[in-house]
Amino acid sequence: MNTYGAAFRVTVFGSSHGPGIGCVVDGCPAGVEMAQEAVQKDLDRRRPSPGIGTPRAEEDLVQMQSGVHEGRTTGAPIQMYIENRDRDSSKYAAFKRTPRPGHADYPALVKYGPGHDIRGGGQFSGRMTAPLVAAGSVAKSLLATKGIRFAAYTRSIGKVADEEDRRLEEVLDNVYSRPTRAASDELDARMRAEVLAAKEDGDSVGGVVRCLVEGLPVGVGEPFFDTLDGELAKLLFAIPAVKGVEFGSGFGASRTRGSENNDVYQFQEGRVRTSTNHAGGVLGGMSNGMPLDLRVAFKPTASIPKAQRTVDLGTGKEAMLKIEGRHDPCIVPRAVVVVEAVSALAIADLMIRGGYIARTC
Amino acid sequence: MNTYGAAFRVTVFGSSHGPGIGCVVDGCPAGVEMAQEAVQKDLDRRRPSPGIGTPRAEEDLVQMQSGVHEGRTTGAPIQMYIENRDRDSSKYAAFKRTPRPGHADYPALVKYGPGHDIRGGGQFSGRMTAPLVAAGSVAKSLLATKGIRFAAYTRSIGKVADEEDRRLEEVLDNVYSRPTRAASDELDARMRAEVLAAKEDGDSVGGVVRCLVEGLPVGVGEPFFDTLDGELAKLLFAIPAVKGVEFGSGFGASRTRGSENNDVYQFQEGRVRTSTNHAGGVLGGMSNGMPLDLRVAFKPTASIPKAQRTVDLGTGKEAMLKIEGRHDPCIVPRAVVVVEAVSALAIADLMIRGGYIARTC
Amino acid sequence: MNTYGAAFRVTVFGSSHGPGIGCVVDGCPAGVEMAQEAVQKDLDRRRPSPGIGTPRAEEDLVQMQSGVHEGRTTGAPIQMYIENRDRDSSKYAAFKRTPRPGHADYPALVKYGPGHDIRGGGQFSGRMTAPLVAAGSVAKSLLATKGIRFAAYTRSIGKVADEEDRRLEEVLDNVYSRPTRAASDELDARMRAEVLAAKEDGDSVGGVVRCLVEGLPVGVGEPFFDTLDGELAKLLFAIPAVKGVEFGSGFGASRTRGSENNDVYQFQEGRVRTSTNHAGGVLGGMSNGMPLDLRVAFKPTASIPKAQRTVDLGTGKEAMLKIEGRHDPCIVPRAVVVVEAVSALAIADLMIRGGYIARTC
Amino acid sequence: MNTYGAAFRVTVFGSSHGPGIGCVVDGCPAGVEMAQEAVQKDLDRRRPSPGIGTPRAEEDLVQMQSGVHEGRTTGAPIQMYIENRDRDSSKYAAFKRTPRPGHADYPALVKYGPGHDIRGGGQFSGRMTAPLVAAGSVAKSLLATKGIRFAAYTRSIGKVADEEDRRLEEVLDNVYSRPTRAASDELDARMRAEVLAAKEDGDSVGGVVRCLVEGLPVGVGEPFFDTLDGELAKLLFAIPAVKGVEFGSGFGASRTRGSENNDVYQFQEGRVRTSTNHAGGVLGGMSNGMPLDLRVAFKPTASIPKAQRTVDLGTGKEAMLKIEGRHDPCIVPRAVVVVEAVSALAIADLMIRGGYIARTC
Repeated sequence: MNTYGAAFRVTVFGSSHGPGIGCVVDGCPAGVEMAQEAVQKDLDRRRPSPGIGTPRAEEDLVQMQSGVHEGRTTGAPIQMYIENRDRDSSKYAAFKRTPRPGHADYPALVKYGPGHDIRGGGQFSGRMTAPLVAAGSVAKSLLATKGIRFAAYTRSIGKVADEEDRRLEEVLDNVYSRPTRAASDELDARMRAEVLAAKEDGDSVGGVVRCLVEGLPVGVGEPFFDTLDGELAKLLFAIPAVKGVEFGSGFGASRTRGSENNDVYQFQEGRVRTSTNHAGGVLGGMSNGMPLDLRVAFKPTASIPKAQRTVDLGTGKEAMLKIEGRHDPCIVPRAVVVVEAVSALAIADLMIRGGYIARTC
Repeated sequence: MNTYGAAFRVTVFGSSHGPGIGCVVDGCPAGVEMAQEAVQKDLDRRRPSPGIGTPRAEEDLVQMQSGVHEGRTTGAPIQMYIENRDRDSSKYAAFKRTPRPGHADYPALVKYGPGHDIRGGGQFSGRMTAPLVAAGSVAKSLLATKGIRFAAYTRSIGKVADEEDRRLEEVLDNVYSRPTRAASDELDARMRAEVLAAKEDGDSVGGVVRCLVEGLPVGVGEPFFDTLDGELAKLLFAIPAVKGVEFGSGFGASRTRGSENNDVYQFQEGRVRTSTNHAGGVLGGMSNGMPLDLRVAFKPTASIPKAQRTVDLGTGKEAMLKIEGRHDPCIVPRAVVVVEAVSALAIADLMIRGGYIARTC
Repeated sequence: MNTYGAAFRVTVFGSSHGPGIGCVVDGCPAGVEMAQEAVQKDLDRRRPSPGIGTPRAEEDLVQMQSGVHEGRTTGAPIQMYIENRDRDSSKYAAFKRTPRPGHADYPALVKYGPGHDIRGGGQFSGRMTAPLVAAGSVAKSLLATKGIRFAAYTRSIGKVADEEDRRLEEVLDNVYSRPTRAASDELDARMRAEVLAAKEDGDSVGGVVRCLVEGLPVGVGEPFFDTLDGELAKLLFAIPAVKGVEFGSGFGASRTRGSENNDVYQFQEGRVRTSTNHAGGVLGGMSNGMPLDLRVAFKPTASIPKAQRTVDLGTGKEAMLKIEGRHDPCIVPRAVVVVEAVSALAIADLMIRGGYIARTC
Repeated sequence: MNTYGAAFRVTVFGSSHGPGIGCVVDGCPAGVEMAQEAVQKDLDRRRPSPGIGTPRAEEDLVQMQSGVHEGRTTGAPIQMYIENRDRDSSKYAAFKRTPRPGHADYPALVKYGPGHDIRGGGQFSGRMTAPLVAAGSVAKSLLATKGIRFAAYTRSIGKVADEEDRRLEEVLDNVYSRPTRAASDELDARMRAEVLAAKEDGDSVGGVVRCLVEGLPVGVGEPFFDTLDGELAKLLFAIPAVKGVEFGSGFGASRTRGSENNDVYQFQEGRVRTSTNHAGGVLGGMSNGMPLDLRVAFKPTASIPKAQRTVDLGTGKEAMLKIEGRHDPCIVPRAVVVVEAVSALAIADLMIRGGYIARTC
């Protein structure tokens, strides 16, 4: 349902073309510095990049309506609200009859019946990731007090892939200045070209986001079921368009031998570290002290201008569909900060649950 | 923690070298036919295949101790217990000092302290998948009453990959007769060779399991967070050694365009279907009526006979480790039924939650 | 925490003197008629009665900001927001030093530290029952579609007690027209006098609310822990000032014998009913088909104008406290609709969980 | 369902006349001293007292099957199992046709259908409190490490009431040596007479248990919903036969004024205390540093030898029922340790959730 977390808990609400969207963050300890500006900054990072994003011009101005007093959390739930201002629902009614291929329209109609609010994709819209970003921003502010840092970036768009094994410092400050959130200007240019080529064809393109997290203590994650990788994966798959999640060497590990894939322990400056990080920072469902390293595969945006075949649920016949609306030809650049956000939500919850962060200061 | 599920709930307990392991399954509707034999059959499918598995000879005889009366569920929790018979803990004490690379030893020691029961990997042992299989078997029996069928098989071991797009019927009955759970005899032979080669080198090898599920109604999955793919992924990552999960075209989707990747709707025998299944049966976190299609990447077994470098937590110096114990050179064949099991657990829970299965008959 | 419910889930947020308060209701099936006016009507029933209530003049205008489209629920979360308009926080700062006897000030300060937002009692204020009423109103609209009706009334204030065994029809329509929510005009007059006498003395007075619920099917409640009476009690104790909860003959049952207290089964118009209702409609944690009958004891309002002794946490000495603020001399009349509301929340959740209401229409 | 707790979690299983009953306790920190003998001692306190209890002679020998190694918890789930040895199901089949007044038979049959295991009351049997006692004993051992002590006793049986305001020390060691668990020998004699009188009449009698808890830190309890009193009440109502729960002055508070009922703060040996304890140790859903003081009303045992009227669900006519089986004429003495146990479960969970006890040592 629309609530996640046992100890640090986020509830999202709203829909793409209703009056607004928002979230409630519960369980954030009292006394943590929390600025609406920091949340706004993250929301701005989710806005479409000029030229390669949707023309829908939402400012996404957040209002923190409770839980923060005089710049610090009070221990009460933090509610944040974002008005929907640039709504144009005129294009959606048709999708109740002719569901968009690759989109949630059809299963949502079957599940919720004719009352389903299909406007803008309703509660299945990518727009619902805005409250996730707001909640994740609160989580990142909390985790920053423990020295935990997040850095995500675009690893590939379509066939343009960044093959470097980037370190967190490389990407931390720079990626949000680049439209595609690539890790270098050269990759940014090539990835932009890939997006624009798809856009010109009335098409869309997918990609992969990589996220690095540093500063986690050893042992975060609750076996047997509420593992660090499992909770992260659960939240990552809640992001619309995600089709795969892997940690460390991921699918590549399946082709290796143990002697190659095992990360050998060493002492580095008195701390236990591994020489490689094929585990991606997680062993037995728990953090192992190495940077968390995960990759998330996004499919190409389902809503494309190009004509597509579909069914007409009214006539029972097949039909052609030409989607107008306003859509991103590639969701990946906007998803980078969303991946950071949900990673922070899962980690904040597991750290409070595990006693790594006091519930009450 | 050790409980999963909101409406169909499994709690696992025990550890690899304690007196036994087991689970409690709660929320199974009353009146469902339930035979201990069916559970035993699934447990037998998890046992090591002669020649390519561990020599640890556990019979894994299950006792159903409550919740079933006269061959049918009563609505009360179903407890199942499996004795550990073939325990040899003599090899494990050393791992508290010299943690095994790639294994949970080190984070578990940091998290649980010196009281951690490291024998056989304790609660992080692959042995804990036996109660998962038992619980999943109950879920499969429940789901069978709704016409839902599961079929998993080994898609690759090391560099030997099955490139066919198998259908459920092809693999349903046959794979468990083959030691590697491959989809053909020829692949079985090649995969066995791959495992044996690793074994001869004192090494291990990884692989990929694919799971198909047919018969799901449209709409299973609870957006925004408790999605079908997210819940499956959460449980799949709880299986030891899993490093990646993908649905449908998965990571491949990230390299495609929307016009290629979107599955076009069609009417087939009066039902809405898609011509392709790049979505892997899930859209917007809900089942879309097509077969569920997921792949799970397993890393090579961490415990290998080959000598490895590690740290000695006692001396603070580096050390060499030669793992004796009894381990599978490739966990993949035994994981096939485990992937089926956890998939069934996630689906049973979401179907009861969504009202697709009555809580009470 | 601030979320209740497994399948029908409410999250509350806000605090007494922040910008606003509200809630998110998740899990309400799609397609249910839902009018903001019905919620407003219930909120109006929570407003102080002239003469015997607080002078704080909150209009409590609710805005339904998501989840309802064209007069029906969409299946998405329903968010409701109420602005705080008549705030006067000037009186509260002192309570951080001299905590009010009988109020949450002291434990909240210890738990949340100096960041605790003590204004108006913060998240411990009786004002937080407004979002409960809003959420409960949604639950009542949902349950009304299944023929379930709620009727609560004031059973006693101070020493004035209503000894009649009222039936639901008697109280259903009338009580909210009476300032004290008594079941007769005569009792209303006597109860008002009791409140006014306390008020004149600068004091406050307690009372008991009784709630009847009819139309429940047999079997609602999830043994062993999530019982009907247990879930109701959990929510009832969340209402500020509640000190006791009993069902049917309640504490009185402890003084009887089984042969007196057992309710004998009979057939009435072909249905199984009991001749008496000492069980209060609940047996073994499940509804038994008879009206649910519960009573809730409220202590007198802790904040009284009369001077009281307390401690000065600054000086470490004892101190006198004279509470100004704006408080109800008796909370009971305003609590009647709150008791109805939380009862509806518990029942809605258990009915969806038990499959009595479809999650999806 | 059959699991309780967010951080310290108990799952019960089994039924009165199945092979056995038990529980899984998850979330107990690693490294806590834990002896099977301590659990056995508590289970022995739940056994019927000679002369005034059921003749069913269950030894209730507990086996701790996982989670404890070398006398200390390992951090893995603790499973405990109790065989049912003295089963006699011959008397129960009739209750499917002629449900026992005051018992869960009828709603259970409607809810679970003909598959319901009615033998011995199945999962609704008072016998299911044995695993609660075992789990509660683990919780008490954990809480003892924080200096928290529990003492419950029989406050009344039928019309014999103990009017003293007992302190914890008075009852701590002595009550379990008295058959009725009364706080004095004189009360024990009078209460025994009350039970025997009921027994001689083929009848049963109710009573009240009071529980005191000392040593709680200030602030335990999670507002708004997961309050200390609310969680305790939820669990207390899960005990079969409970009809009322109150804290401190409880229902009596409803008849008082604020100036009488408010507990005035004082400094006592440098600590903030209150002069009286009308709050029963809980304010705003949180512990306030005073002893927790709660009372639980038990109805008389529903199963009595005396002939009673009921319905015959087969013929659709009314019928007479004479219950044979083996039942306690008064459940209260055996419930004393159960009240302690469930109180400990609720407190352990809230203390871990609130960070008062580290999840991981």
